[in-house]
Amino acid sequence: MNDIDIEKLQGIANQLRIHSIEATTAAGSGHPTSCCSAADVVAALFFAHMRYNPKDPHYYNNDRFILSKGHAAPLLYAAWAETGLFPMADLLKLRTLGSDLEGHPTPRLPFADIATGSLGQGLGVGVGMALCARLDKLDYRTYVLMGDGEIAEGAVWEAASLAGVYKLNNLVAIVDVNRLGQSQETAFGHHLDVYAKRFAAFGWRVEEIDGHDMDEILEVLAADSLGDQPLVILAKTLKGAGISFIQDKDNWHGKPLNKEEAARAIAELQPRAKTGTDVKIAAPSQLPAPNNAGPASYPPLAYKLGDQVATREAYGTALLRMGGVNPSIVAMDGDTKNSTYADKFFKKFPERSTECYIAEQNLVAVAIGFGTRGKTPFASTFATFFTRAADQIRVAGISMANLNLVGSHVGVSIGEDGPSQMALEDIALMRAIAGSKVLYPSDAVCAEKLLEEMAKDRGLHFLRTSRPKTPVIYNNDEQFPIGGAKVVRQNAGDKVTVVGAGITLFEALKAADALKAEGINITVIDAYSIKPLAKGVIKAAAQKTGNTVITVEDHYAEGGLGDAVAGELSVDGIKVHKLAVRELPHSGKPDELIAKYGIDSNAIIKAVKAL
Amino acid sequence: MNDIDIEKLQGIANQLRIHSIEATTAAGSGHPTSCCSAADVVAALFFAHMRYNPKDPHYYNNDRFILSKGHAAPLLYAAWAETGLFPMADLLKLRTLGSDLEGHPTPRLPFADIATGSLGQGLGVGVGMALCARLDKLDYRTYVLMGDGEIAEGAVWEAASLAGVYKLNNLVAIVDVNRLGQSQETAFGHHLDVYAKRFAAFGWRVEEIDGHDMDEILEVLAADSLGDQPLVILAKTLKGAGISFIQDKDNWHGKPLNKEEAARAIAELQPRAKTGTDVKIAAPSQLPAPNNAGPASYPPLAYKLGDQVATREAYGTALLRMGGVNPSIVAMDGDTKNSTYADKFFKKFPERSTECYIAEQNLVAVAIGFGTRGKTPFASTFATFFTRAADQIRVAGISMANLNLVGSHVGVSIGEDGPSQMALEDIALMRAIAGSKVLYPSDAVCAEKLLEEMAKDRGLHFLRTSRPKTPVIYNNDEQFPIGGAKVVRQNAGDKVTVVGAGITLFEALKAADALKAEGINITVIDAYSIKPLAKGVIKAAAQKTGNTVITVEDHYAEGGLGDAVAGELSVDGIKVHKLAVRELPHSGKPDELIAKYGIDSNAIIKAVKAL
Repeated sequence: MNDIDIEKLQGIANQLRIHSIEATTAAGSGHPTSCCSAADVVAALFFAHMRYNPKDPHYYNNDRFILSKGHAAPLLYAAWAETGLFPMADLLKLRTLGSDLEGHPTPRLPFADIATGSLGQGLGVGVGMALCARLDKLDYRTYVLMGDGEIAEGAVWEAASLAGVYKLNNLVAIVDVNRLGQSQETAFGHHLDVYAKRFAAFGWRVEEIDGHDMDEILEVLAADSLGDQPLVILAKTLKGAGISFIQDKDNWHGKPLNKEEAARAIAELQPRAKTGTDVKIAAPSQLPAPNNAGPASYPPLAYKLGDQVATREAYGTALLRMGGVNPSIVAMDGDTKNSTYADKFFKKFPERSTECYIAEQNLVAVAIGFGTRGKTPFASTFATFFTRAADQIRVAGISMANLNLVGSHVGVSIGEDGPSQMALEDIALMRAIAGSKVLYPSDAVCAEKLLEEMAKDRGLHFLRTSRPKTPVIYNNDEQFPIGGAKVVRQNAGDKVTVVGAGITLFEALKAADALKAEGINITVIDAYSIKPLAKGVIKAAAQKTGNTVITVEDHYAEGGLGDAVAGELSVDGIKVHKLAVRELPHSGKPDELIAKYGIDSNAIIKAVKAL
Repeated sequence: MNDIDIEKLQGIANQLRIHSIEATTAAGSGHPTSCCSAADVVAALFFAHMRYNPKDPHYYNNDRFILSKGHAAPLLYAAWAETGLFPMADLLKLRTLGSDLEGHPTPRLPFADIATGSLGQGLGVGVGMALCARLDKLDYRTYVLMGDGEIAEGAVWEAASLAGVYKLNNLVAIVDVNRLGQSQETAFGHHLDVYAKRFAAFGWRVEEIDGHDMDEILEVLAADSLGDQPLVILAKTLKGAGISFIQDKDNWHGKPLNKEEAARAIAELQPRAKTGTDVKIAAPSQLPAPNNAGPASYPPLAYKLGDQVATREAYGTALLRMGGVNPSIVAMDGDTKNSTYADKFFKKFPERSTECYIAEQNLVAVAIGFGTRGKTPFASTFATFFTRAADQIRVAGISMANLNLVGSHVGVSIGEDGPSQMALEDIALMRAIAGSKVLYPSDAVCAEKLLEEMAKDRGLHFLRTSRPKTPVIYNNDEQFPIGGAKVVRQNAGDKVTVVGAGITLFEALKAADALKAEGINITVIDAYSIKPLAKGVIKAAAQKTGNTVITVEDHYAEGGLGDAVAGELSVDGIKVHKLAVRELPHSGKPDELIAKYGIDSNAIIKAVKAL
């Protein structure tokens, strides 16, 4: 802790309030009252307690701060401005197109590791960071500031549970219990005891404080990282604290003060406000930097053409192969590791593996947390269960996160388990994530090579693996750049171009063989990169086959491969005939199902002949 | 409780085990050990405790049973077969294409109110059912059987919290604590005390029992519905219970016994097995049926052309207008009701309104629960926060649920709050849900009329509303059938067809005016129904404009309106030029943003001229 007196800290808190009010009044929108309730805690953390280099927010051993209640963004911006990171005058550019001080924080700002604003997501990311600190033998601590309304989100309790299980004593959650939600009082108002019981039951050490009493705040912070439990600080606060005519009043959520109100509020706060610019921030410990360097290349593959290998199994093999030479690779799974084959990595590299149990939102959040710390995270579960984490993935897009998701058991080809276990909407969901890349290998070589690409290419990737075994059709040295496609069959005089991916590629090849026997030749393309799509490759092939394409996919007709191809190529006059699952599927044998839902070789043959 | 002896019930439990083993062995897949652990509890519920008409599983005052651990489906099927609902021989058709006894239960079966199999979703639906029983003054109780692994899901804790807040003493959760997950032991093994503390902290009455001791099971069940809290029964069980060589052993998740193992297991169980077919099930109370009849028509609208009304506000107005004459309408919101305008309904009809707080998974689950009981639920929040409930919505599709979702604050046109609050992927997500209908009104009349359609048309609907005010352009008596589109501007000699929806329709109209002044005429279509799309209307218009369409949408380029049009019409040789948001957006003023991201009238004019 810094050598700083209580009155100074209280003054800084008031200065942060003033900044928050001024900025939101200038912007004409925002959440000043949600800033005011947390101002004392933030002042204490930033100017008395946390150890960090304020000139270098990304420094690897800085304490981390996540503003999970992202609508208090002006408070966060004010704190960093007061550390001297950027000019104070910038604060008044809040929420304008020309400034990265947006309505809610995003990593466009160097001090925001993740985007927040979709509530309940910060704690899980904090769990990932805290686990990463342990892995890297660094002593930075992770602080997550949440609102009381936000902890109704189930994602918070997934994270809380895992933090308890793994005894993350380097993780501190602070709940700003200001009692008031957006549209009414929260369910528990100022009854801190309710929250206390819950966190205690989830394995946390609990401290209850007056969130406006600087002595109490500093006292509980001074005792963080003690014991073997994560710490939650329940701070009883007033929404709009410090503004006599607003604090603790209804109907002040997400409303700026008008100019007159702002002037009045500032007149109240100004006499007790002090700047933080002259405070010397405690420096982080000097510890060795983690080694997150990827290798120049990975060990070669050793498949034989014709080997029968499920792409989900290739995932496990690749992770193990890559993990040996790339220390930045970490893996996490949601109690499906014996199905996704992540268990190969888990057994060999237990210290780099995190079992997240059946809690997919947190699985993704933990991976994002590791990603913010320079790791190359691979999170796996059944593809359709990533849908549970759709909002975390959406926000990962906004966070420009380094996140690799590998989802197994896709489509009707999983068979007997039935529709609840079949990913049939995952491509649609993942394509619509900002900056995402969506990959769908058909054989083991392609799967492994794409996993290498994912590890190299910082960003958000989703790889879709299949349950059934499929033959190896590519040589071990084949390259699969993201954004590419393979023309696997093409002859002069081909009648139509069939674009498949995953198991449907093999149906297309079967169809090609059968049609050839009847004297009809077709082009077959493996669209292993669905986003970005190899538009040029498909277009060139289509133009040789009368501008006609048939897409075939083990996915619903909406938003998948067919829509991707049509959406990119219809503008060029390419006609796209989509074969896809068009009704709610049933349990059955994989072969029965791909036939029934019209995505097998017979369906392709029929479609080709119909043209 | 029935007059039935303990030994008989134990025998029925064993018979259920035998059925589960036989069925999964015949199928060659499935989860017999997960059935065996819960067999005693299920036998007690179905043959001694629950009050229901076994010939009519849908009867309105039957006790409800949700098998949230859906992988124990064979156990559920066995129980219903033993009640006599269908022939015992059908059980051996498990997981075949010809039988609705699928791998996980779906409402294709009359006794499954919802599809389960994506874990952690049952309790929230149970909360909705229990709230509905209270609303309808019925005394049925709702039982939700969960696995211990599954309660790591945050959705469970969202539901648990709300059940505690609303003191749902007609709701009983049973946790089958069999200690073993899919890939390893759960985080808490047989430590029931961990779960006990958690549920108690969330406001539940907790009973811990030996889940294989029929006396204990019956005793705690006999005391359900007492007090003012929901009841959770923590049942300590063994996975594979009753099979000496398998129970409590690792590596038996999701594996059928081979024929020899099955024979051996059945030989152990058979001597202590008894049929349930001769048990007289306790009948439900005779109480008046709820009135869920919709009206022949709704009161008329009273807008004037040119009125400035946000479609989100029209939602609130419509709900109020419809709610007065349709007693089946219920509403729920996630602490955004003053932004979504659901608060209009909440104030007038508090008894039919449920505040779900900031917990969107549970918001959707509660709505699904009401829907299963014949209500017409409307759930609202910011559209992008429905992404948090993407998996619940996916499974609602499989459940063929009656569910109306109304999401506000879509696209970059929300402005200053920034990307975390902007729905830009919601159309992609919602289109990909089985059986969904996706609606996107541009003016208040269209919004209100679509809401009437949603209330009439049983199924899963998503209505996307906008934040900015837009002018009323339709007459109050205009009709908006689902699956339709409006040609709002069309002249002979139009150069191109522009398809918009929501706020972009007005940009298209602005562009049309500006272009007209330059002597260029365009067709403008309001695609208010994105799924199903009015393919015929758009195609007919496009064919008059050189087969050329420009789509413009406040949504990402993937999976939205443009892909929907291209995906449906490229096959007819229609060329679709997509205007959509193609990068991660920034905070700013709405007008600045729609200009910057190329979806305003200038972008349309430019695109038209480029053609």
